[in-house]
Amino acid sequence: MSRTIALLGSTGSIGTMTLDVVQSHPEEFRVATLAAGRNIDLLLLQIEQFRPEIVSVADEAGRDAVRARFGSQVEVLTGLEGLIACATHPDVDVVVTAVVGSVGLLPTMKALEAGKDIALANKETLVAAGHLVMELAQAKGCAILPVDSEHSAIYQCLHRERPVDVDRIILTASGGSFRDKTREEMQVATVSGALNHPNWAMGAKITVDSATLMNKGLEVIEAHWLFGMPYDRIDVVVHPESIVHSLVEFVDGSVLAQLGSPDMRIPIQYALAYPNRLPAPFKRLNLLEVGQLHFRAPDFERFPLLRMCFEAGKAGGSMPTVLNAANEVANELFRKEQIGFLDIERTVERVMDRHTLHTHPSLEDVMAADSWARQQALEVVRDLETGGR
Amino acid sequence: MSRTIALLGSTGSIGTMTLDVVQSHPEEFRVATLAAGRNIDLLLLQIEQFRPEIVSVADEAGRDAVRARFGSQVEVLTGLEGLIACATHPDVDVVVTAVVGSVGLLPTMKALEAGKDIALANKETLVAAGHLVMELAQAKGCAILPVDSEHSAIYQCLHRERPVDVDRIILTASGGSFRDKTREEMQVATVSGALNHPNWAMGAKITVDSATLMNKGLEVIEAHWLFGMPYDRIDVVVHPESIVHSLVEFVDGSVLAQLGSPDMRIPIQYALAYPNRLPAPFKRLNLLEVGQLHFRAPDFERFPLLRMCFEAGKAGGSMPTVLNAANEVANELFRKEQIGFLDIERTVERVMDRHTLHTHPSLEDVMAADSWARQQALEVVRDLETGGR
Repeated sequence: MSRTIALLGSTGSIGTMTLDVVQSHPEEFRVATLAAGRNIDLLLLQIEQFRPEIVSVADEAGRDAVRARFGSQVEVLTGLEGLIACATHPDVDVVVTAVVGSVGLLPTMKALEAGKDIALANKETLVAAGHLVMELAQAKGCAILPVDSEHSAIYQCLHRERPVDVDRIILTASGGSFRDKTREEMQVATVSGALNHPNWAMGAKITVDSATLMNKGLEVIEAHWLFGMPYDRIDVVVHPESIVHSLVEFVDGSVLAQLGSPDMRIPIQYALAYPNRLPAPFKRLNLLEVGQLHFRAPDFERFPLLRMCFEAGKAGGSMPTVLNAANEVANELFRKEQIGFLDIERTVERVMDRHTLHTHPSLEDVMAADSWARQQALEVVRDLETGGR
Repeated sequence: MSRTIALLGSTGSIGTMTLDVVQSHPEEFRVATLAAGRNIDLLLLQIEQFRPEIVSVADEAGRDAVRARFGSQVEVLTGLEGLIACATHPDVDVVVTAVVGSVGLLPTMKALEAGKDIALANKETLVAAGHLVMELAQAKGCAILPVDSEHSAIYQCLHRERPVDVDRIILTASGGSFRDKTREEMQVATVSGALNHPNWAMGAKITVDSATLMNKGLEVIEAHWLFGMPYDRIDVVVHPESIVHSLVEFVDGSVLAQLGSPDMRIPIQYALAYPNRLPAPFKRLNLLEVGQLHFRAPDFERFPLLRMCFEAGKAGGSMPTVLNAANEVANELFRKEQIGFLDIERTVERVMDRHTLHTHPSLEDVMAADSWARQQALEVVRDLETGGR
């Protein structure tokens, strides 16, 4: 096995861990293209070490900085065009989509059109346009290999089982930074409080999404598309230890679960090596050290975004796109301390309320709904600020 | 799918649950032969309901009772010959070996010679002669499908994974009736105390074996043979809730586990339906009701039979046969209140000490070692009684 990789989002949390995995298996993996945003210092180090053929950066300042360091040794592109060029490079076998937000959608679609397998860490892609992505992957015979620990767990549990034998998917949730907080405490929650995740070291956007349980709701929608599972057969269970990464219940009452230390390199490597496994130096799970595992029901009252995700998923069509875009805007404004923590859910709910459902959106419709929802979210936030609660 | 079944041990715990499974899937399963011991009343009911072609009973009194009720409607045989006739009946696809003790060995070997798949609930068969059984199964292309919940769990976790990717097997143990008892309490333990298992409703012999952790040790040896796993890559973890039935750790640090309500019909049905699954009305696992799962290290000091099983397994050859035969005798004498609870381990240890290892025993050697160990066990018990402790 030897696989050539396009890595979109190389300087983020998943990106750097992907390069860790590549580095420990130089015989198996090679990086052909790297796409980053504005963390040019780190990208320069990555180019030095992994010697890609093409890199893409956010803007011309970044492009100039790469050129100043590497001259003609590497081709440098920018923006969405650069992301797509990285994703569709002829040498590439598998595209790791580790960018944040719905910006991942177009490069993923272009990569599928070019026949690439996708190692998908960008759940917004499936949330925004699951019907289009899965249809195209099937038509092109491409695999969509999940990198999320939960979906990797389910993928491993389903490994060559018959779909007809599967009864139910159970996604585990750590509960996020505010698992045990009251609504009153959330009302005054700070950004640093939301970013203080108990188990996982992740990027800022996803860590805030974990605190609202939006992240788990996005995963529900992602699981719906990845595994073709109706929403009433997807459960969420709060599991504070983050050791059981998710479970699958079969028609005979048997349940399979995947467990492991909370280390994203395990699912990243699984996606890259699939259907094989590769030895890895990751810290092993020691059940004796862990000692106890706890499970409890999620609280849809304290975490209404989880409920809204189920609702948007069941509504279907353009509604998950709108849910996701409004959340991206509100999440960012919260991180910039422009709105409060509970304003995130308020913003998403109001934008969803205003939306007229498009039942069978094309890619253009999806992108239009995404733009519409972002504008609406900004408007809602302005209304909130002027006391329109 | 339609499979014709020989059920050896039809009136025992596994036997009656197997018939439960058969009854709920009349399109899939048919019983061709039933072998029981002395519980003739129950056997008569089973014959009435399942209409086998042949039955086997322990002795002539049983045979006469069956004939008195069914005349020439069913052929009745006795003893080992009867067991073998049931196991090798030409209609049979799969033999459920649910008899207790090493008496299961010969019928299993004969069934394999006749090309039957085996659903193996009789762990003593693999403990006594794993090398012969696995070799014969491989030569004949027969499947050995485990019915023990632990081994079924491992089988499900290994389903079509590559052997080279497997790093370690982790067997869970409820800890048995005396999980939290001191040695002093065990010294005066009663039969009814030993039979009071916290989680599983099982036969008397295996429940006592659970109280000594001998059952877990036998499962370690069984796992060694079933999955070709060296003993230093088989761990035992005490898990009092008996919800996680066992786990497999892979080379990439990922761990798969099978969970379920403690209901033996789940692994029985899995073995009969393999590689498919069938819907079942068994009580589903509800993680929210369970709430917590605990794991801790087994105590080899309080439960020396578990240690002895690892030692016998590593010694190999005829030693596991001797360990098992001595335990069968001592277990039975304890249940007859002829020896104390801790005399079980003393008896097994002394018989193992006296044994001269046969490194590559044939089937005849295995049977000779089994007989030798049973005699020795009786002698040791006599010594114990005359104060030779």
